[in-house]
Amino acid sequence: MERIKVGIAGGSGYTGLELLRILHSHPLVEVIWISSESFAEKSLEEYCPAWVKRASLEFLSLSKQGVPSPVDVVFLALPHGESMSYLKLFGPEVKVIDLSADFRFKNREIYEKVYGITHLEPLALGEAVYGIPEIYRKEIAQARLVANPGCYPTSVIIPVYPLLKEGLVEEDIIVDSKSGVSGAGKKPQESTHFCEVYGSFKAYGVGKHRHQPEMEENLSELSGRRIRVTFVPHLLPVKRGILSTIYLKLRKEVSEQAIFELFKAYYQDRFWVRVFPPGSFPELKWVVGSNFIDIGFLKVDKQLILISAIDNLTKGASGQAVQNMNLMFGIDERIGLPENILYP
Amino acid sequence: MERIKVGIAGGSGYTGLELLRILHSHPLVEVIWISSESFAEKSLEEYCPAWVKRASLEFLSLSKQGVPSPVDVVFLALPHGESMSYLKLFGPEVKVIDLSADFRFKNREIYEKVYGITHLEPLALGEAVYGIPEIYRKEIAQARLVANPGCYPTSVIIPVYPLLKEGLVEEDIIVDSKSGVSGAGKKPQESTHFCEVYGSFKAYGVGKHRHQPEMEENLSELSGRRIRVTFVPHLLPVKRGILSTIYLKLRKEVSEQAIFELFKAYYQDRFWVRVFPPGSFPELKWVVGSNFIDIGFLKVDKQLILISAIDNLTKGASGQAVQNMNLMFGIDERIGLPENILYP
Amino acid sequence: MERIKVGIAGGSGYTGLELLRILHSHPLVEVIWISSESFAEKSLEEYCPAWVKRASLEFLSLSKQGVPSPVDVVFLALPHGESMSYLKLFGPEVKVIDLSADFRFKNREIYEKVYGITHLEPLALGEAVYGIPEIYRKEIAQARLVANPGCYPTSVIIPVYPLLKEGLVEEDIIVDSKSGVSGAGKKPQESTHFCEVYGSFKAYGVGKHRHQPEMEENLSELSGRRIRVTFVPHLLPVKRGILSTIYLKLRKEVSEQAIFELFKAYYQDRFWVRVFPPGSFPELKWVVGSNFIDIGFLKVDKQLILISAIDNLTKGASGQAVQNMNLMFGIDERIGLPENILYP
Amino acid sequence: MERIKVGIAGGSGYTGLELLRILHSHPLVEVIWISSESFAEKSLEEYCPAWVKRASLEFLSLSKQGVPSPVDVVFLALPHGESMSYLKLFGPEVKVIDLSADFRFKNREIYEKVYGITHLEPLALGEAVYGIPEIYRKEIAQARLVANPGCYPTSVIIPVYPLLKEGLVEEDIIVDSKSGVSGAGKKPQESTHFCEVYGSFKAYGVGKHRHQPEMEENLSELSGRRIRVTFVPHLLPVKRGILSTIYLKLRKEVSEQAIFELFKAYYQDRFWVRVFPPGSFPELKWVVGSNFIDIGFLKVDKQLILISAIDNLTKGASGQAVQNMNLMFGIDERIGLPENILYP
Repeated sequence: MERIKVGIAGGSGYTGLELLRILHSHPLVEVIWISSESFAEKSLEEYCPAWVKRASLEFLSLSKQGVPSPVDVVFLALPHGESMSYLKLFGPEVKVIDLSADFRFKNREIYEKVYGITHLEPLALGEAVYGIPEIYRKEIAQARLVANPGCYPTSVIIPVYPLLKEGLVEEDIIVDSKSGVSGAGKKPQESTHFCEVYGSFKAYGVGKHRHQPEMEENLSELSGRRIRVTFVPHLLPVKRGILSTIYLKLRKEVSEQAIFELFKAYYQDRFWVRVFPPGSFPELKWVVGSNFIDIGFLKVDKQLILISAIDNLTKGASGQAVQNMNLMFGIDERIGLPENILYP
Repeated sequence: MERIKVGIAGGSGYTGLELLRILHSHPLVEVIWISSESFAEKSLEEYCPAWVKRASLEFLSLSKQGVPSPVDVVFLALPHGESMSYLKLFGPEVKVIDLSADFRFKNREIYEKVYGITHLEPLALGEAVYGIPEIYRKEIAQARLVANPGCYPTSVIIPVYPLLKEGLVEEDIIVDSKSGVSGAGKKPQESTHFCEVYGSFKAYGVGKHRHQPEMEENLSELSGRRIRVTFVPHLLPVKRGILSTIYLKLRKEVSEQAIFELFKAYYQDRFWVRVFPPGSFPELKWVVGSNFIDIGFLKVDKQLILISAIDNLTKGASGQAVQNMNLMFGIDERIGLPENILYP
Repeated sequence: MERIKVGIAGGSGYTGLELLRILHSHPLVEVIWISSESFAEKSLEEYCPAWVKRASLEFLSLSKQGVPSPVDVVFLALPHGESMSYLKLFGPEVKVIDLSADFRFKNREIYEKVYGITHLEPLALGEAVYGIPEIYRKEIAQARLVANPGCYPTSVIIPVYPLLKEGLVEEDIIVDSKSGVSGAGKKPQESTHFCEVYGSFKAYGVGKHRHQPEMEENLSELSGRRIRVTFVPHLLPVKRGILSTIYLKLRKEVSEQAIFELFKAYYQDRFWVRVFPPGSFPELKWVVGSNFIDIGFLKVDKQLILISAIDNLTKGASGQAVQNMNLMFGIDERIGLPENILYP
Repeated sequence: MERIKVGIAGGSGYTGLELLRILHSHPLVEVIWISSESFAEKSLEEYCPAWVKRASLEFLSLSKQGVPSPVDVVFLALPHGESMSYLKLFGPEVKVIDLSADFRFKNREIYEKVYGITHLEPLALGEAVYGIPEIYRKEIAQARLVANPGCYPTSVIIPVYPLLKEGLVEEDIIVDSKSGVSGAGKKPQESTHFCEVYGSFKAYGVGKHRHQPEMEENLSELSGRRIRVTFVPHLLPVKRGILSTIYLKLRKEVSEQAIFELFKAYYQDRFWVRVFPPGSFPELKWVVGSNFIDIGFLKVDKQLILISAIDNLTKGASGQAVQNMNLMFGIDERIGLPENILYP
């Protein structure tokens, strides 16, 4: 099989570099170009010495040079609001996987309100498929434009979906998430200064994080009910990883075994989902670096506690994007994605 | 005023050493002795070089030497189950502050079930006062035996109490807590191995942590209603600190300002409680090392989110114990306790 | 005794806040004002919530408001080059302790070359006393202007001085230092981004760090010989602390016991120096947060290995500055300085 | 090509699990069995949930079950002293790569003195090849028994070798090394307790670390001169990685460019060595997780500073072991070894 030709727009940030980590060793992919407006003409080796002796790419400037060589698929690893302006650079024969929030909402008004930006490509909102491969597998396979989900929503929608779909739980969901610092991006700011984070812990964006409406819109659509999410994200003093503790109310009596079976029915053939038996719970260290989402749960009377863990840059961003790419090109979703983690 | 003579039983663990950190610089206290069965006859300097040039104490063995000198108050910083067996060593003229769980429950059966131990001093259960100075101030002032609360319950009961007391919230409470590793004690075990913790994060004791019944018993007593707590503790990769995110349902419409006023009414004259204005939230770094409990909150429709932060070894254990001592001896509760934190 | 009236110029950085931590609880000091051009009119509580309920200071702008109230001593916690321009704001009756490098060099040309700045107050260079209280005690007691030493030089000069002074070691010294991130200051930059530091380690400024000529000038002056220092600083993934491993060549046969006695002779009556017996070595955790310098050593044939540990913001900066202030006002150097550390 | 059949003896420690991480995805290897006396009959998935859905191995007990299936090569990831007793379990047709110190010394007496053990297989000491593939490539290719070097010696011998070999530097070498905690192994002990390490830093084993005589014996043999190493290892509060700062005295005037050329001449065709141009230096984050050794250097007069960085479990142990295996089986040394690191 001929290799898939890939371009990465916005390659110098954390998700861009994570895309490169994965795609560079993907056996069916060839990375044709990688762009960065800030680091144009800088070599990858110089920018990130981990690449010395391994790859000889150079960042190019899409704004100055235009699209340099035809590719089969482009990943947009760009800031929200900027990403959508790149869409028109690529003809309809080029598949696009967007890692920003620009195409995640069906409802343009919600997007514009949440992100405070006028949408430049409103027509594409209808075309875009929300890229959770475990749920929208068929739609992704036929999509030209995939909106890669937010990291927190990924950690929540996958475990909650089967329970909502089967009508087992109430509409009010509490999500207490904890994320590593890389979620805040590569640009230095006070909140990512080592001395402000190390040894500390805090909630942030309480009651106003942008991923809350994203979860609500998607879960409401998936369940056909109006889902309300109370969402409190926290900043963990680690580099990578999201662990979400989710509190649901059961609508009827269900055994833990039945819940376990339900998860198996939904996800047994989804390689990247690992459901733990009742009473076992995920830990960041078993997923960070891999594309897995690990799920554990416990029932206490009518309260159901779900715990999920992902790597925010892999399953929460670039790994899932490549998983989507695999589906879009008819490849097994396991191929080329990291399974291995570094332990200890 | 003559200095209070103090003994510390079980001084070689983390809470014992934290007691010493505080009591050694308390202007109205003299530490008369400190005991440790494992490190008997070892000098403090040798055990913990931070004390070189500063104090010349030596651990003694209570089991071998008996109580060496009369003291006014003894702190028991001993394992659960062991602590209660020390009570009879001290005459009724000696005040006792117990940092274990042995005297925290009113209901002996719950204690015996939760800790799997037959209680040796059941009569003392009625006498013991649950040592949250912000709530049981008067009782503590007259107590001979104070049961110092668990670290998690401290972080939960103080912020929840005014809301329950005023009947503003429902009986079902969700508590999502995150604690530093020092909560697991000084003894090396797999779960505290640096390589197993650093860069990771996990929930533990889900649905079965011993502090859950402690919270339920106390909150039920305080509110006169049957309170149910869903409790999920997590292990933070830091040394000290607990941040608890608490989810409550409001029973009626109340404004954030009214809630803020309520907190002020209850805690304005409690020095060690700092309530943040609506929308501001605590961070571990502002409390770790001090005896403060910081509280923030936000209302989203009928959902009330409380966030509290303490140092688990200070306000969550030894600091609160000394605060109790102050009250028991008629001293201002602010005296001798750490306010200062190390920043950065 | 009347309290010493203190002003802090440049109070919003890490050394400024550390000065405040110490001076606020110093029993013989009253902090009259604290300045910050960037945060003028902002309250301390708002800037740093650890101060809520504890102090009600507000940053003022010296450039706009001038010196607000007469003080006995001013601490300059300002950037190199900027600090010296503040000197003329204060009359000769005000003592000045400068934490920048501006008055550390006797030789103006070296300063100008190393810092790339024309010196504005060259006359003051002769007047300024290099503020290591363990060595220049008498000079400091009579000084009007003290140049507080660099953090690395403090960790090196104190342990090396007795050996050089007694002619026991060669002129070539190798210093391998490791410092926490707070040494790089509060301003966010790529090199202090949490994700760039956490879990990593590197050397930096190899062969060109500005503290190298500072050490060479001072050690040469102290010993009357031309001392050459090979200096390699490293960035430790912790917030505070410097540990320096120093390699010296013995010029003659000396026993470890004799070296131990030598250290005792020099430093026995210096409270803030703790010399460990041969074969015991300092650790950051025993000094961070305190004003101590801990020193250990080992002899292997003619090679002498010294290891010193300090808190870079305390003994390495603001603590030493207050220690100097004590001497300048005839106060015991132990008073008001932090001895206690947080363990664990 | 038929896959190499591999057995791992002692698979439950950190180096055993690291061997598995590498060998499991090595395209020319099949892991036939993995043993652990302590965890015999436990499944890998249960022991280490990162393996769920990925491999279905079970630890077996060599002592109870004997060698279960014939393999082409066995890795001994066992404690010093224990390892050598396993040698006789395997016939001469099985290649053996030993990760302990048991076969690293040519001189039996030094081994016995340093490790305090009587050697059980002294004859094998002559046969064993010291497994640094960059230096002993030919010998390793023909070896039956390879003694995989210590982690610290690996970080030192590779950068120092060309300089010693060419007679450019003096015999006295100072090595200041810093290692992550995983070097201390998986067994919990006080020195690896999270709360004892996090935020701290210390030297350990000063003047008596067992890797010092290993370096001295090997460097002396390589150079034909009596090399003396002053070695001070330090404990870094990170999980993985060794950074060694090495101080050498030049015997003659050499330019940095000439040194750079020398390194290139020795290591240009050694894939796993990356030499940085003068003035650039390695960082742990660019090597941790990979099998690379990165080397930087700077000359200051006659002082030469070398800095090397490796992952102590990969290039410092299991990665180098697999690299040796590749050579022993005539495979390109790059194959199957990790190049990719996780950034950030």
